Amino acid sequence: MLGATGYAGVELLRILLRHPRVNLKAITSQQYAGKRVSEIYPSLAGKCDLALEELQVEKIASHCDLAFAALPHETSMEVVAGLLRRGKRVIDLSADFRLHDAAAYQRWYRPHKVPELLGEAVYGLTEIHRDAIGKARLVANPGCYPTGAVLGLAPLFGEKMVRGTVVIDAKSGTTGAGRSSAVELSFSEVNENFKAYNVGVHRHAPEIEQELGELGGEPVSVLFAPHLVPMSRGILSTIYVELKKAPAEDGLAKLYRKFYRDEPFIRILPAGMFPQTKDVRGSNDCAIGFRYDSPTDRLVVITAIDNLVKGAAGQAVHNMNLMYGWPETEGLQGTALVP
Amino acid sequence: MLGATGYAGVELLRILLRHPRVNLKAITSQQYAGKRVSEIYPSLAGKCDLALEELQVEKIASHCDLAFAALPHETSMEVVAGLLRRGKRVIDLSADFRLHDAAAYQRWYRPHKVPELLGEAVYGLTEIHRDAIGKARLVANPGCYPTGAVLGLAPLFGEKMVRGTVVIDAKSGTTGAGRSSAVELSFSEVNENFKAYNVGVHRHAPEIEQELGELGGEPVSVLFAPHLVPMSRGILSTIYVELKKAPAEDGLAKLYRKFYRDEPFIRILPAGMFPQTKDVRGSNDCAIGFRYDSPTDRLVVITAIDNLVKGAAGQAVHNMNLMYGWPETEGLQGTALVP
Amino acid sequence: MLGATGYAGVELLRILLRHPRVNLKAITSQQYAGKRVSEIYPSLAGKCDLALEELQVEKIASHCDLAFAALPHETSMEVVAGLLRRGKRVIDLSADFRLHDAAAYQRWYRPHKVPELLGEAVYGLTEIHRDAIGKARLVANPGCYPTGAVLGLAPLFGEKMVRGTVVIDAKSGTTGAGRSSAVELSFSEVNENFKAYNVGVHRHAPEIEQELGELGGEPVSVLFAPHLVPMSRGILSTIYVELKKAPAEDGLAKLYRKFYRDEPFIRILPAGMFPQTKDVRGSNDCAIGFRYDSPTDRLVVITAIDNLVKGAAGQAVHNMNLMYGWPETEGLQGTALVP
Amino acid sequence: MLGATGYAGVELLRILLRHPRVNLKAITSQQYAGKRVSEIYPSLAGKCDLALEELQVEKIASHCDLAFAALPHETSMEVVAGLLRRGKRVIDLSADFRLHDAAAYQRWYRPHKVPELLGEAVYGLTEIHRDAIGKARLVANPGCYPTGAVLGLAPLFGEKMVRGTVVIDAKSGTTGAGRSSAVELSFSEVNENFKAYNVGVHRHAPEIEQELGELGGEPVSVLFAPHLVPMSRGILSTIYVELKKAPAEDGLAKLYRKFYRDEPFIRILPAGMFPQTKDVRGSNDCAIGFRYDSPTDRLVVITAIDNLVKGAAGQAVHNMNLMYGWPETEGLQGTALVP
Repeated sequence: MLGATGYAGVELLRILLRHPRVNLKAITSQQYAGKRVSEIYPSLAGKCDLALEELQVEKIASHCDLAFAALPHETSMEVVAGLLRRGKRVIDLSADFRLHDAAAYQRWYRPHKVPELLGEAVYGLTEIHRDAIGKARLVANPGCYPTGAVLGLAPLFGEKMVRGTVVIDAKSGTTGAGRSSAVELSFSEVNENFKAYNVGVHRHAPEIEQELGELGGEPVSVLFAPHLVPMSRGILSTIYVELKKAPAEDGLAKLYRKFYRDEPFIRILPAGMFPQTKDVRGSNDCAIGFRYDSPTDRLVVITAIDNLVKGAAGQAVHNMNLMYGWPETEGLQGTALVP
Repeated sequence: MLGATGYAGVELLRILLRHPRVNLKAITSQQYAGKRVSEIYPSLAGKCDLALEELQVEKIASHCDLAFAALPHETSMEVVAGLLRRGKRVIDLSADFRLHDAAAYQRWYRPHKVPELLGEAVYGLTEIHRDAIGKARLVANPGCYPTGAVLGLAPLFGEKMVRGTVVIDAKSGTTGAGRSSAVELSFSEVNENFKAYNVGVHRHAPEIEQELGELGGEPVSVLFAPHLVPMSRGILSTIYVELKKAPAEDGLAKLYRKFYRDEPFIRILPAGMFPQTKDVRGSNDCAIGFRYDSPTDRLVVITAIDNLVKGAAGQAVHNMNLMYGWPETEGLQGTALVP
Repeated sequence: MLGATGYAGVELLRILLRHPRVNLKAITSQQYAGKRVSEIYPSLAGKCDLALEELQVEKIASHCDLAFAALPHETSMEVVAGLLRRGKRVIDLSADFRLHDAAAYQRWYRPHKVPELLGEAVYGLTEIHRDAIGKARLVANPGCYPTGAVLGLAPLFGEKMVRGTVVIDAKSGTTGAGRSSAVELSFSEVNENFKAYNVGVHRHAPEIEQELGELGGEPVSVLFAPHLVPMSRGILSTIYVELKKAPAEDGLAKLYRKFYRDEPFIRILPAGMFPQTKDVRGSNDCAIGFRYDSPTDRLVVITAIDNLVKGAAGQAVHNMNLMYGWPETEGLQGTALVP
Repeated sequence: MLGATGYAGVELLRILLRHPRVNLKAITSQQYAGKRVSEIYPSLAGKCDLALEELQVEKIASHCDLAFAALPHETSMEVVAGLLRRGKRVIDLSADFRLHDAAAYQRWYRPHKVPELLGEAVYGLTEIHRDAIGKARLVANPGCYPTGAVLGLAPLFGEKMVRGTVVIDAKSGTTGAGRSSAVELSFSEVNENFKAYNVGVHRHAPEIEQELGELGGEPVSVLFAPHLVPMSRGILSTIYVELKKAPAEDGLAKLYRKFYRDEPFIRILPAGMFPQTKDVRGSNDCAIGFRYDSPTDRLVVITAIDNLVKGAAGQAVHNMNLMYGWPETEGLQGTALVP
C-alpha cells in the first residue's frame, strides 16, 4: 500500500489486517520511511509491524499484484501510471483519475500528466459501476462526499425523475480533511464550532455532476455546500430534490429498495426515518432515509456514511474484492462502533 | 424571573447580573424551590445567591415591574395572563404567544387557554419589530431557529425578491433542546454523531412562515430541516433561496447593509464569506454571510447565532432595554468567548 | 444474552456477531421486549435482527449452554443463580459476584441474596485468573476501572514491591456510566467539562483492593479517584506507586514483559512512553506505560483500555473463549478504530 | 498589547474591551502585521478593529504606560527589557521572568539574556504576591498549571502542614498549548482521546516548586503529571497530599477560608464537594474543593480554573488593576459561560 500513514491509509491497514485473502507485502510513506508503522500508529503494534518504505515503483511492482495508492492528489498520477505500465492493477484513492475529462481536472486541480489514462479509469462507486470495476486495471476510488451524495440520488437520476437544481447540504467530520497540521483544523478551533466552507466551489462537486449526469443521461445542476462538524468520522448529506411529478405513496421506498436490491452495504430506512452518522461509524454501510414534503413539493434524502470506510478505505476493499472475484463483503463485515 | 434553572433561565441570569439597571427581585423554580440557585449552578456562587421560590403569580406581581418567563411551553400562558392582569409587563421565552393564530398554535401545540392575548403579543424579533416591542405589554420572545432564519431572510422578503420554496437547513447545538434527561441527548449518544430530526415537521416552522409572510406580504413556502450538532451552543442556518431576478454585483451586500443599518448586533460579512458559530458564542450577535451561485442561480445565506443569547436570553434583554427606553446594548456588550 | 440493549450489551453483540463459534440464541431486554434489537440500534440492521424477549430464566436455560448477563447490579444475582441451578454457565457483567465477601458487597451495594455463590464465582480478570476462569461455572466479569488499574499494578504486587498507599487517578469516558437519562450525563452538561466524582468512595475501589490484596498476599491501601472525560469510550488510569526499593534500570520493563509474556491483549510500551485511550478504542487491548521519577522516588504507571471492550464485553468474550477451550483471541482480533 | 493573536492575547483583548479604565493603544503581531485583528478573529468585528502592527519597542513605549506581552517564551525577554529601560511597566505572560534563578531557567528553557531582571520580576500569582505586584515594574504572569496547583496548595504550605511528595495530576484543555498547527493537536487526534504527556518533566514543575518552596520555607518535592482533555478551556488539578498530622474536623475548611478571606476570585467549596471546569469557564474564578480520605490518610485537593482567564489573561488584568490601584475586579466581573 502506498501512503500508509494518512488517515485513509491507516484505515485501509485496519481493514486489510482482518481480510483473510490479502497478503500485505509493502507499505510506503514519504514522511516516515524507515520507521515501523506501529511507531506512528501504536494501535497497530503487534498487529502490523511492517517497516515503512520509500516509494519506489519498480520495487513495489515486483512485490504485488495490486496496489492501493493513498497518496496526495497530484502526486498519485505518475506513480499509478508507472504501476500500470508494469502490469499491475491499482486502486487509487486520490482524486487523480476520478474525472473523465482532463479539462475538468485541470480546472479543479492542475494540468493532468497522464490524461490518456482518464478514459480507462473506472470510477469506483461500487454499487453503480460494479461490472466495470470487476474488470478494471485502474479504479479511481470516489471522494467521500460524492459517495454519500450520489448513492442518495442514483435511483432518482436513474429513473430521470429529477428536475431543476439539486441542493446537497453535506456535513463532514474532520478526518475528511486528512491528517493535517492546519491551524483551522486544530482542536481548539474546531471544537464547539460549526461552519460551512467552499460553498459552491468544492472540488467534489464535479465528481457528483459527472456521475449524476451519466446516470440521468443529461447535464445536471448541483449546488454543493459542505460543512465541518466537530466530530472525527462521518458524513451526513441532506439532499433537497424537486421531482418531475409527485411520487405515489410507497413509490419511493419501492424504487430505492429495487435499485439497491441485494446490495450488502446499502440500508434503506423506512419512509420518514433518517439515518445518523453514528450508526455507520467504522462500518462500510451507507444508510439512506427520505421524506417527501408535500407542502413544498420537495423530496429530502439523507444519507450517512463513514467517510474513511465507505467514503474511502472500505469502498476500496469492496472494489478489490470485485476485481478478484472474492466474496464482496470479505473483510468488511464489521458492525459500526456504537456508542 | 420565572423558571430560572433551565438553560435559557440561567443564561438570562448571567446577562442580567452585569446589567447596570436591573434589580433582580425574585427567581422561581418548580423543581428546585427552596434551594439557592448557586447550588444548582455553582458558577453563580458569590454572584447570585438568591433562593429559588415557588411560582406564585400574586407574589411575583407585587415584587416587580417586568417578568421574564422562561417556563415550559403550555405552562407559561396562564402565568403570563395572570401577570398582565396585575398590570405587569412580560417577556415570555416560551412558544405560547409567538403565533398570532390560535388555530396554528393548536395544530402545533395544544388548544390555547388565553387566545385573546395572541393579538396583543408582539413577536420579539428585535430588529424587525423594534417599535412595537418598545410599547408592548407582552413580548413573545422568538424561538432560536426562527431568529437565525428570519434575520437571514428578512431583507430579501422585505424587498419581495424571493420566489418559490426557501430551504432552511439548520444545525443546532444541544442546549437548544433545554436541560434534558432524554437518553437521546446524553453525551454517549450525541458525541461523535450528527443527525437530522423533525425534517419538515418542526414546531419552529410556523413561526418562520408567519414572520416571512408578514415581511413579504404574502404566504411563503418554507422547508425547514433542523439537525443536531455535537456541540453545546450555536445555530448555523444554511438557507437556499431562489430570487425573482439575479442580483446586481454588490446589490445584495448593499441591501443587507441598508436593511440592518445601525443595528448593534447584526454583522454582515463581506460577500463570499461565511460566519461560524464560534464567532458569536456567548454574544448577542447574529453574523450573516451570503454567496450567489451563478451556475445554479441560487442564493446561499448563512447565519450564525448563539441559541441561548441572541436566540433566547440576549434577545430578551435587548427587548427589555427597548421597553424601558434604555441604551439598547446595555448588558449585552460582551465579546464572544473565543476560542 | 441477557440485557442486550445497555452499552455493554450492544458491544457484546457487536463482538459476538463476528465470532465464528458462537450461535446467538436469544437476547433479552426489559425495556424493549418485543422489538427487534435493530430498531433500538440501527447499526445492527441486517446484522442482527433478533427480537428482544422478556427475560424468563427457564426459557433462556432451555436455549443455551452459556449466558452473558449484562443486567443492572442487584437484579442480576437471582437470574444468575437460576441459570446455574439449571446447569448453565454464566458470565455476569454486573458487580453482583465480583466481591468474595458478602459483607463488603452489602457495604457498597445492598444485602446479597445468594451469598453462597460468592465463593464459587471466579473474578474474570483474564490475565490474572486464567486457569480458574477456564474451569468456572460462574465468571464475575470485572468492573471497567478495576480492569485498567489492576492490570497496571499486578506485576508490582505479584513481586511484593509496593509500599504505602497507591493513588489511582482514573479518567473515564461517559459510556462507563451506561445508557443513562441522568441530566448530569447529558451532552450539554458533559461537553467542554471535566470533573472528579466519588473520590475515595467509588464502588470499584473494593474490587481493586481485593485483587491487589490477593496478588500481594496482604491488605493494600488504595486511594481511588475517578474523573469524567468528555469522550464516549476509554479509561486512562494514572497510578502513583512507592516502591520498597528503587528499581534497577530496565528492571521494571523486564518485570512487566515477563509477567505478561505471551498475553495477546497486553501491550507494554517502552519505558518513558505512555499510552493514550484512542490507541485501544474498539479493541480488547490494554496498553501499559510507566516511568520512574527519581527526584520523587515515585513510579508512575499509566494504562489505557476501552471500557466497553477490555473493560466489559471484550473481556467477557475472552473469558468465554477460555471456558470453551477456544483460541483466546477468537472474535477479538480487531484493531482499534483510529482516528 | 504585544502578541495579540495568540489565544492568551485574544482573551486579553476580550477582557480589556470591557474594562472601563483601559485605553488600548496598540496591538502587535509578527504573523499578521498590517491586518486588522478582527480579520483574524471575526468575533472582534465592530468591537476592536485596530490594525496589528509590527512590534517596535520604541514605538510601543511612546504609546503607553503599561504593556502586556503575550509573546512566545524566549522572545519575550529582550522586548520586556527594552520597555523597562524606557520607563514602562510590563506584565509578561511568557515564562521568561517566572523563575528567579537563571540557572533553573537555562535548564528548562535556554540561557537567559537579561538575568539581571530576574530578581526584580514579581511572580504574578495575585493572591500570593498582591503587595509586591502592586508596586512592581515587571510582573511575570504565572503559567496556567502553576496557577491552579499553587492556589490549591498555598494554605497548606503556608502553615507548613505538608510532608513528603505532593502528587499533582493535572488535566488541561487544548488551548493551554496555544494556537498551534501541531498534528497532535488537530481535532482528529485529540477528539475522543485522553492522554498524559511530559509526566515528571514539564516546564511548569519548577514554577510550582519555586512558589511552594517559598511559601513553606523549605524545598518541596512535587510530582507533576499533566494530561490533555478533549475540551478547549479549563484545567482541573487533582492534588494528593500527605499531612504532618490528621486535620481536625472542619479544620481544613477554616484554614482555606481564612487564607483566602475576601479574595474576590477564590471560591472554597463545602468539604467533600469538588469543582468542575465548566463552572469557571470564561471567568477569573478559581474554585477549590477538598476531601480528607481517612483510610489512606491522604488529603485530596481539587482546583478548577479557566486556563485562558485565571491561568493567563484574567490574572494579568487583575494584576494590572493592582498596579494602578483600581478596583480589583474591574473588567473581571463576568459569570462563567454555563452551559
